[in-house]
Amino acid sequence: MEIRVIRDVLEESNARARENRSTFDQYGIFVVNIMSSPGSGKTTLLQRTIPLLQERGISCAVIEGDISSTLDSERLQPLGVPVVQANTEPFGGDCHVGSHLVQAALEHLNLEEISMLFIENIGNLVCPAEFYLGEDCKVVVLSLTEGEDKPLKYPLMFRECDLCLINKMDLEPHLDIDLDLLKTNLQKINGRLDVLTVSAKTGEGISAWINWLLNHKGSP
Amino acid sequence: MEIRVIRDVLEESNARARENRSTFDQYGIFVVNIMSSPGSGKTTLLQRTIPLLQERGISCAVIEGDISSTLDSERLQPLGVPVVQANTEPFGGDCHVGSHLVQAALEHLNLEEISMLFIENIGNLVCPAEFYLGEDCKVVVLSLTEGEDKPLKYPLMFRECDLCLINKMDLEPHLDIDLDLLKTNLQKINGRLDVLTVSAKTGEGISAWINWLLNHKGSP
Repeated sequence: MEIRVIRDVLEESNARARENRSTFDQYGIFVVNIMSSPGSGKTTLLQRTIPLLQERGISCAVIEGDISSTLDSERLQPLGVPVVQANTEPFGGDCHVGSHLVQAALEHLNLEEISMLFIENIGNLVCPAEFYLGEDCKVVVLSLTEGEDKPLKYPLMFRECDLCLINKMDLEPHLDIDLDLLKTNLQKINGRLDVLTVSAKTGEGISAWINWLLNHKGSP
Repeated sequence: MEIRVIRDVLEESNARARENRSTFDQYGIFVVNIMSSPGSGKTTLLQRTIPLLQERGISCAVIEGDISSTLDSERLQPLGVPVVQANTEPFGGDCHVGSHLVQAALEHLNLEEISMLFIENIGNLVCPAEFYLGEDCKVVVLSLTEGEDKPLKYPLMFRECDLCLINKMDLEPHLDIDLDLLKTNLQKINGRLDVLTVSAKTGEGISAWINWLLNHKGSP
């Protein structure tokens, strides 16, 4: 019985994701699902990224996934872009952003005015990897402080993603970390994974990330 | 239907946890369930902790929870204590250590020779908080790099735990973090939560953590 129910839940989830996908296609919105462990720097990355995209004429919006609190939405307010908070606590504290939650969030956005939408998923290196939301690409942010072994210990996340942003490069001098080993482990799990090193705090490497986004988005 | 199945799963989980609890009581084993985000330093903490407990005559063992890989168990091998690897990948890649997995792991340990058992849970600040394993206490390790807001964003974990170890204190000079605000946020979520600051890397604060364990364990 349990297996059948789980299948039903996944089918329902994928059906909502396909509806999201066709909405995104209809309005020509490029959608990026950003995932990571808690505290890897997803929100700081968006704070750094969105103004640079706006300078290039790309109008952005954000769906902020969290179990509880509106802290991340508040941090993004000064950017002046539409932000919808999607909390899972009213739905049992789900450990990932679900496609139904994205669908509900879209009702609060003026889709005609958006060309790039970021979904900041809940900080969790496990469960969000299992759920398609209708996005164009999946990006995992890995803080350098988390260690070289994470791709081997959380393989699904790194297999599912198109890009890994290794963040907090500014801390490298203070950590005992072997960056080459980390990159080798990433390639071992997913040979097609793009990898960029950045510091959302200092701006290091951010232009390469912007270019990655623009290349994957293609012409408007 | 879904709700009934979830209730069945939880009841089954709690039944196994109660069986574990009675096994621990029978053998007089004090059990600590250690949880955190990925890469917060749980394994390094155990590498630092276990030799100090052994010096005090406390015989330790570890159940190493991971989705995939035996990397953490390998890191603990030099300590010379019994370590059982409990991987969830063969069981669908579960995002937490389940009570049935603990029960299966206990079969590989000589329980008469153990007085303190650490369960290193899967790196996940969400799901492991929901599951009782039969332990005496729950400890959450929070890396200082994860930011002040984590208690507010992942409240269940911090409500469920008895102690929060704020780890990687050695990085404090290189981070823009307000430690007082972090402590205020912890108390806001759980006024009865003990909080200790440590660096598993340098050993800072570790003696207070050892004393916390010994006080909670009580006499052998």
